[in-house]
Amino acid sequence: MTEKKLPLSSSELLDLVKKVGTPFNIYDGDEIEKNAEEMKAAFSWAPSFTNYFAVKALPNINILKLLGKHGFGADCSSLPELYMAKAAGIEGKNIMFTSNDTPDEEFREAYNLGAVLNLDDITHIEAVERACGKLPDTISFRFNPGKERTGNAIIGNPVEAKYGVTRDQLFQAYSIAKEKGVKHFYLHTMVASNELNPDYIVETARMLFSLVSELKEKCGIEVEAIDMGGGVGIPYRPEDSKIQWKELGDRIHVLYKEMIEEKGLKPLKITFECGRAITGPYGYLVSTVRHVTKKYKDYVGLDSCMADLMRPALYGSYHHITVVGKENEKADHKYDVTGSLCENNDKFAIDRMLPEIEKGDVIVIHDTGAHGFAMGFNYNGKMRHAEYLKTEGRILKIRRDETYEDYIKTQLITPEEV
Amino acid sequence: MTEKKLPLSSSELLDLVKKVGTPFNIYDGDEIEKNAEEMKAAFSWAPSFTNYFAVKALPNINILKLLGKHGFGADCSSLPELYMAKAAGIEGKNIMFTSNDTPDEEFREAYNLGAVLNLDDITHIEAVERACGKLPDTISFRFNPGKERTGNAIIGNPVEAKYGVTRDQLFQAYSIAKEKGVKHFYLHTMVASNELNPDYIVETARMLFSLVSELKEKCGIEVEAIDMGGGVGIPYRPEDSKIQWKELGDRIHVLYKEMIEEKGLKPLKITFECGRAITGPYGYLVSTVRHVTKKYKDYVGLDSCMADLMRPALYGSYHHITVVGKENEKADHKYDVTGSLCENNDKFAIDRMLPEIEKGDVIVIHDTGAHGFAMGFNYNGKMRHAEYLKTEGRILKIRRDETYEDYIKTQLITPEEV
Repeated sequence: MTEKKLPLSSSELLDLVKKVGTPFNIYDGDEIEKNAEEMKAAFSWAPSFTNYFAVKALPNINILKLLGKHGFGADCSSLPELYMAKAAGIEGKNIMFTSNDTPDEEFREAYNLGAVLNLDDITHIEAVERACGKLPDTISFRFNPGKERTGNAIIGNPVEAKYGVTRDQLFQAYSIAKEKGVKHFYLHTMVASNELNPDYIVETARMLFSLVSELKEKCGIEVEAIDMGGGVGIPYRPEDSKIQWKELGDRIHVLYKEMIEEKGLKPLKITFECGRAITGPYGYLVSTVRHVTKKYKDYVGLDSCMADLMRPALYGSYHHITVVGKENEKADHKYDVTGSLCENNDKFAIDRMLPEIEKGDVIVIHDTGAHGFAMGFNYNGKMRHAEYLKTEGRILKIRRDETYEDYIKTQLITPEEV
Repeated sequence: MTEKKLPLSSSELLDLVKKVGTPFNIYDGDEIEKNAEEMKAAFSWAPSFTNYFAVKALPNINILKLLGKHGFGADCSSLPELYMAKAAGIEGKNIMFTSNDTPDEEFREAYNLGAVLNLDDITHIEAVERACGKLPDTISFRFNPGKERTGNAIIGNPVEAKYGVTRDQLFQAYSIAKEKGVKHFYLHTMVASNELNPDYIVETARMLFSLVSELKEKCGIEVEAIDMGGGVGIPYRPEDSKIQWKELGDRIHVLYKEMIEEKGLKPLKITFECGRAITGPYGYLVSTVRHVTKKYKDYVGLDSCMADLMRPALYGSYHHITVVGKENEKADHKYDVTGSLCENNDKFAIDRMLPEIEKGDVIVIHDTGAHGFAMGFNYNGKMRHAEYLKTEGRILKIRRDETYEDYIKTQLITPEEV
């Protein structure tokens, strides 16, 4: 069970709405920092530890800065994500560059920033040499276990995944890199997404520890760090429970002692690329009810839409909803809660039981701290909205609303002949 | 069957790629204009006719201008879409404002532009009065037929749709509007999306003609125009055939004579809100192959991604693919054609048979003239790309690439305390 709290008291939140208008996202920075520290503490047994925050989950420089204070790095997979990491003061080996189908200029930028280059394919060894003139001292490969793992429901079957090197290619890839003078080796995988069963993550650690042994035996390579990717889920539904960092850390520690320490293997840095599990539960999309309508069903129309949160429409995902000020009223009305996009799938919730809702009510959609704003589009001419950060007793505006001027900026009203 | 042509010869296209780089969308303006004229001709029997082009399908002012030359109007459902229509010189009754969950400022702007206000709900009568001070002379209502129609596969079941007024509400809504002094009435519906069976569209005409009769009988209201919405599909697959405008027009004409003319009803303006059927087949996403990789399957990685075209990832939609210069080679290789987004569903095609592909090959993804660029997002820091228009022997740049500066523009690097 997970209690669905608000980032501010009802009255503070309504005051903020009066001041800044809706819709907006607000992130609870204090809770995010606390969560980051808990994750770190759970892996304090490791010789070295970091979480490369998946920038794509919440691409905001101020969030990266906040996490950087706690020693978190950045998991980047595009040029803008590299630039944002840099702007937040995250550089060097604190950047994990995990891309796929990568252009030369991205390899170059990551190389120049001193990032760990995590290669998605065996042919990328040559691609990096061509792009950067030579290989960096440190290289990582992304392992795709194929049939060895089933993958969880969300990320799909690894055999069908476009990512990573196969088992056969893995040993070949490390050997080639070693021959070409690479000195330090990381090993990466990512086989789950939004997973609430810690067994999955523990099994990933087991798989990687085992590969570390094999790489030593077969290629004489001493892997220095493993990256377990992200995939740690969050309890979107009140009846779900979060993965406890402490329990996860302890279970992986047991394996580490057995599979690394007791075998006399080189001490390993333990890393993750968690995004959702770090910020997801601490983001809130705050909207106002524009219309309550009765058609063949009852609808609540908000001033936000798929441009603000696409997960329910895209994946049918559950996001909890609180009607601010009506937290203690009986949820005895059934509504479809919709956005204003001219798409019938623009619905935040279908057949949701809620207290009776009136025009003007303030609605909080929970767990929008990851893959919320990030996935917003401008379909139907819809704008993306402001972001606020609650931190140390202050509310900071960290993003403004998009405007029509932003929206049409790339259009050439007077076309140019090519 | 539909022949999948390119907008330029292979060599012209390769020359253009050399000049401007990839990825980009190119729209064949000449074909779009020809298509618009064919649609108009098919309905030349009607007392009056227009197609309000669905701006959300291809939101570019230069495209709206092109269509405006042929008397096409604009179907808008947001403030930016209204602004774009105005910027393209489309005003007054040539704008159909079909929104849902509408804010006051949008009603006001549409009212001020003299647009036809197409109300999505019976409560919107009051909403318009409140927003605009009074009702306009002309009003339309969006009819949701509920159980009377099944809806096609894509738009879903009308009973579950957030749109429109129910049958009972319809008569009430028109009566109220009449009492409040509205003088001219339109009637709108939209029950299909991307439908290739003309029967669906013809049945929609029958339903609306029948309602026009009923509205006369029950409310004494003489509807002056019907809007059948969009929903006319396009042949994404070579084995599909397009709906022939002439056949569609002729079939609706037969009904019109029987159900309107012979009953002595007031002559009706016939309107549509087609977007996809107007521009869809005449848009082409042009990309370059970055990597060809062999994992558990064979992958072709393009320099475009879901940011450029989301339909395959979102709906599993088929988009035809041509390897430029290899049109006549045997399609004897099976590939997953992927984008570079760090999402495993970022694939333009799965298990597609194509000629053998090499790094550097230029790939054309067909039928991106609607709901292509329009749905692009910036997830994973991916940028949206340029658009070109081929018109009267010239290639015009009508949109530039998005830049990192555009991307971070709304972020407040130095936050502001609220």
